[in-house]
Amino acid sequence: MIDLVKNYSVIARRMKRSVIRELLKLTNKPDIISFAGGLPDPTAFPVEEIKDITQEVLDKKGASALQYGPTEGVPELIEELIKLAKEQGEDVGPENILVTVASQQGLDLVGKVLIDPSDPIIVELPSYVGGLQAFNCYGAHMFGVPIDDDGILVDKLQAALEKLKKSEEHCKFLYLVPDFQNPTGVTLSGQRRKKIIELSRKYNVFIIEDTPYRQVRFEGEAPPTLYSLDKYSNVISLHTFSKIFVPGFRVGWVKARKEIISKLVIAKQSVDLCTPPFTQLIVAEYCRRGLLKKHIEKIKKIYKKKKDVMLEALSEYMPEAEGLSWTKPEGGLFLWVRLPVYIDADEMFYDAVEEKVAYVIGSAFHCNNKGRNTFRMNFSYPTEDKIVEGIRRLGKCVKKRLILTGRSR
Amino acid sequence: MIDLVKNYSVIARRMKRSVIRELLKLTNKPDIISFAGGLPDPTAFPVEEIKDITQEVLDKKGASALQYGPTEGVPELIEELIKLAKEQGEDVGPENILVTVASQQGLDLVGKVLIDPSDPIIVELPSYVGGLQAFNCYGAHMFGVPIDDDGILVDKLQAALEKLKKSEEHCKFLYLVPDFQNPTGVTLSGQRRKKIIELSRKYNVFIIEDTPYRQVRFEGEAPPTLYSLDKYSNVISLHTFSKIFVPGFRVGWVKARKEIISKLVIAKQSVDLCTPPFTQLIVAEYCRRGLLKKHIEKIKKIYKKKKDVMLEALSEYMPEAEGLSWTKPEGGLFLWVRLPVYIDADEMFYDAVEEKVAYVIGSAFHCNNKGRNTFRMNFSYPTEDKIVEGIRRLGKCVKKRLILTGRSR
Repeated sequence: MIDLVKNYSVIARRMKRSVIRELLKLTNKPDIISFAGGLPDPTAFPVEEIKDITQEVLDKKGASALQYGPTEGVPELIEELIKLAKEQGEDVGPENILVTVASQQGLDLVGKVLIDPSDPIIVELPSYVGGLQAFNCYGAHMFGVPIDDDGILVDKLQAALEKLKKSEEHCKFLYLVPDFQNPTGVTLSGQRRKKIIELSRKYNVFIIEDTPYRQVRFEGEAPPTLYSLDKYSNVISLHTFSKIFVPGFRVGWVKARKEIISKLVIAKQSVDLCTPPFTQLIVAEYCRRGLLKKHIEKIKKIYKKKKDVMLEALSEYMPEAEGLSWTKPEGGLFLWVRLPVYIDADEMFYDAVEEKVAYVIGSAFHCNNKGRNTFRMNFSYPTEDKIVEGIRRLGKCVKKRLILTGRSR
Repeated sequence: MIDLVKNYSVIARRMKRSVIRELLKLTNKPDIISFAGGLPDPTAFPVEEIKDITQEVLDKKGASALQYGPTEGVPELIEELIKLAKEQGEDVGPENILVTVASQQGLDLVGKVLIDPSDPIIVELPSYVGGLQAFNCYGAHMFGVPIDDDGILVDKLQAALEKLKKSEEHCKFLYLVPDFQNPTGVTLSGQRRKKIIELSRKYNVFIIEDTPYRQVRFEGEAPPTLYSLDKYSNVISLHTFSKIFVPGFRVGWVKARKEIISKLVIAKQSVDLCTPPFTQLIVAEYCRRGLLKKHIEKIKKIYKKKKDVMLEALSEYMPEAEGLSWTKPEGGLFLWVRLPVYIDADEMFYDAVEEKVAYVIGSAFHCNNKGRNTFRMNFSYPTEDKIVEGIRRLGKCVKKRLILTGRSR
């Protein structure tokens, strides 16, 4: 019998089923109200329009839709992606774009091309768990920098960069989700963006701008993208249609200077040859017809309403307590709850499941395993009724812990 | 300005644009007859049936087709894949299957989970170039074992395994394309398969059975799959719908013991979360309706005819010369030409492009950079007329080299 441990790569040996996945198994019961996923609202999927476009793509471009395609992506889609970039004031040509199997593949390819085992990278505290997993697979040594309601703390970021420089370590990149961050819903302020670009210049560090939610802004002004502010070609931006259109096509893209794209293309070739041309052509035609913009307007209305319902319910059902607060995102799919430090959200998760409600524990988003008094809430998927009822149940869980702790003092 | 070389990972620094890709650029002219690609015949794509199925999938399962799906694959497809495995006499349950973005992703995930830098693996001489690239990305140390018209030479394989064992190296796996091999079209004999299974047991070595063409058999008897012969759960099989249905959906699958599948699932999660559920559901319904079998019958007829036309043209237009031969595959998409050792197929490629015909140089398939007197020919893509004309042109190139060499002696 083959000794599996001996045969696994070092990375495979370290790979564990994620805590989140294990916890989510507990929540796969029909009567549980789950705020744990990150799913778009399926009732908003433009099924009829996709049916129509699919027929046209197969009629007019069947041979290329069903054949192998270029690793870089199909030209029809790249053309649309350039238009999207120009709307953000970005100077982009086809040589700056690689179509990927959604942005998770962007994260994996960036890891492959930039990270050697033990290479330092800087991530936010908290940070998108899928990013942490992808970079972990390449053995990155992660340094966390805290965020507040305006995004990553620039002085702490500079201190971290300076410290790494002094210890003769070369930080490979800074990983940011600047718009309606997953998990917190926080947006990086315009002023901090400018400073971060300067720091990337000063310390010669790439910035990975992972931005799946940017277009889903309900209110307020959007600060410029990091890519548009960057004059040094230090920003690598990751995008996806998963949140602004549908996740089921798995279509995303990377934007970067052409040398980086060129490396990523070679890496992608050995990874899967190409993203499905079939789904790429459907997405391209959806954009070309101007339907993407309409769809985004539609989901913004739905998600804003759900976010407002969730904020109202939180005000109503959460007890008042020092240290208990939540973010008030201007867009995206998530908000973030901070509990008093003495409440352990990892432990409270089991109470929540008992009460038939679920969230994602905040510690999963912390590369340093901290943040045990925090959790992530998704408002895009559950219905408005369920949001209210779910928050009511969650309020009960928090109250219980408040009282219990009060007594035990 | 960021120093790119300093920032790239070791693997990225070693990644070069493949020779094949560079050569193929020369062949992207409309008047060139190309035997270089590995594309299915697009005129055989079942466009109308796909249109019908797509509508049904969107009507009946729109919400799940367009949403995120399980990393393992959608249940509807896994059910069909189990049926396909049972037809091969394989004992397989859902825990033995992972749906992938075609079989190239299978190669990448296997590399990720099994290979550490410098780990020895054994590959065929020649071997599928996409496999070599994928394993290269994980820093594998490749040992090549020659093949003949019955596949890999078992005595040489055993010698290689023995040598590695004696030098206290642990060979991670043996990589084989046993059915109508890419690039040679050769099939591994049943007798050798049994011996290889025994060797895998004796030396505790996994076997990667990469088998995209198996169902495309025109004639002769199929030997059993390695997976069905294996009693030790040492075989990991990679499959794809690219050659038996369409490549544009990028749907493939891995079959292995459940512990391996479990690791591959974790690896895939950080790589792209899931294969597009949309295309998976279309493929599943195509199988469920019994259309896959009909389609395979159809392409077998087309490809057999083209293969016969190519063999006839080779007989007619290739000069008679010692050391000039080609394989006569019983299925698949490729055949393999061996030139007299003094003719360099890498150099002759430029003559061929002058004559407006193209092939893939054989050296690209050799992990030891040898095989410069060989090349690969694809017969599935070009029309029958073009096959005849292309071989006529190629015959001219070979004749020229024969005469020139004769003179220079």
